[in-house]
Amino acid sequence: MRELGLALPPPARPVASYLQTRVTSIGDGRSLIYVAGQLSREGDQVLSGRCQDQVSVEEATRRAELCALGVMSQIDAAAGLDTLVEMSQVLGFVLSAEGFGDQPKILNGASDLFVEVLGAAGKHTRVAIGAHALPFSATVEIAAVAVVRTG
Amino acid sequence: MRELGLALPPPARPVASYLQTRVTSIGDGRSLIYVAGQLSREGDQVLSGRCQDQVSVEEATRRAELCALGVMSQIDAAAGLDTLVEMSQVLGFVLSAEGFGDQPKILNGASDLFVEVLGAAGKHTRVAIGAHALPFSATVEIAAVAVVRTG
Amino acid sequence: MRELGLALPPPARPVASYLQTRVTSIGDGRSLIYVAGQLSREGDQVLSGRCQDQVSVEEATRRAELCALGVMSQIDAAAGLDTLVEMSQVLGFVLSAEGFGDQPKILNGASDLFVEVLGAAGKHTRVAIGAHALPFSATVEIAAVAVVRTG
Repeated sequence: MRELGLALPPPARPVASYLQTRVTSIGDGRSLIYVAGQLSREGDQVLSGRCQDQVSVEEATRRAELCALGVMSQIDAAAGLDTLVEMSQVLGFVLSAEGFGDQPKILNGASDLFVEVLGAAGKHTRVAIGAHALPFSATVEIAAVAVVRTG
Repeated sequence: MRELGLALPPPARPVASYLQTRVTSIGDGRSLIYVAGQLSREGDQVLSGRCQDQVSVEEATRRAELCALGVMSQIDAAAGLDTLVEMSQVLGFVLSAEGFGDQPKILNGASDLFVEVLGAAGKHTRVAIGAHALPFSATVEIAAVAVVRTG
Repeated sequence: MRELGLALPPPARPVASYLQTRVTSIGDGRSLIYVAGQLSREGDQVLSGRCQDQVSVEEATRRAELCALGVMSQIDAAAGLDTLVEMSQVLGFVLSAEGFGDQPKILNGASDLFVEVLGAAGKHTRVAIGAHALPFSATVEIAAVAVVRTG
């Protein structure tokens, strides 16, 4: 990550009575890790607004990258990012104006960053959705399921 | 649950050709249980309407609690609620007016109830989304993945 | 499938930097397979438009069937459709006009097809959501988690 000029943010605390991660053994020293939805944020500030009428595609893409950093920060805090075996599933929601259909382009910000940082292990299946409303009107929310070594 | 003055509703039947639960062994006498989306309902009546212009935050929160009861009812019917090891992931969708961003507050109704009834095992990761449309215009829909003992 | 007069389409390539499937061993010669969101499409053409003001319920149902074929095509390419033990979870999103609540009817197109082709193994839990916006304004998007034999 240092080579990319990136640093993980401190893991965000849940905004409510839930956990940021849950780790479940699936045998052979490996576990599934479920990661709660990470909102686009810088520090404590949620970055809000709808794409494309309030927030540009370029800026929304940057915000998707911030969500990806948030996901990796949570995995790091729970299990250590170096124990990641593979990302299994990424659920990506983009706060979208009516008729906006470029969610894949925006979520590529996150997908590309997972692969840049984690290599082949960062590759993942993806579900890209345009949301009508998100918590605190965040521009992007990304949740994930991954596999980590815990043995 | 009796201490809380609560009772599980009878498990809702699917409104279509699908299952309410699927149980998959992950070894060590434990299984993942996938629970289908549970709509806000009382008896056979779906509680519909959008938050916050048609349904208040307070009432929507109560409806999220009903969804949580529905999820627990399905787990109980499939595996016995007392076999629950942990809730892994809760997917929560709130039918939302444009610009509404208090989905976390509403879904806390469900999150808090899981923890009240199930203790530490009820803690879970959460994905909170504002939906534009839901089946039968239900106010809340909640699906889950959990771990149960089956050995 | 031949008896049903159906053929699997060639598996769609991802529209971005992600995988269509991820396979993770859960012991006993079985694996979870995560399948990325499959858009309603014919060949390279995404079938777009919102239900029910731009696309009829009947046509949207047909498009949900195409998504189900897409999901099965991905499982077939990754692991062989004959290794499928069970569908665990289907996430279905229908591009919906405001107030439209018949997502279950539309997604039954997919649910019924899974069961017709795969028998009891095709039964699944389902999360049915009405989306405000989807990639390329696709009418339907369906993702899935399933269990396959890999031993």
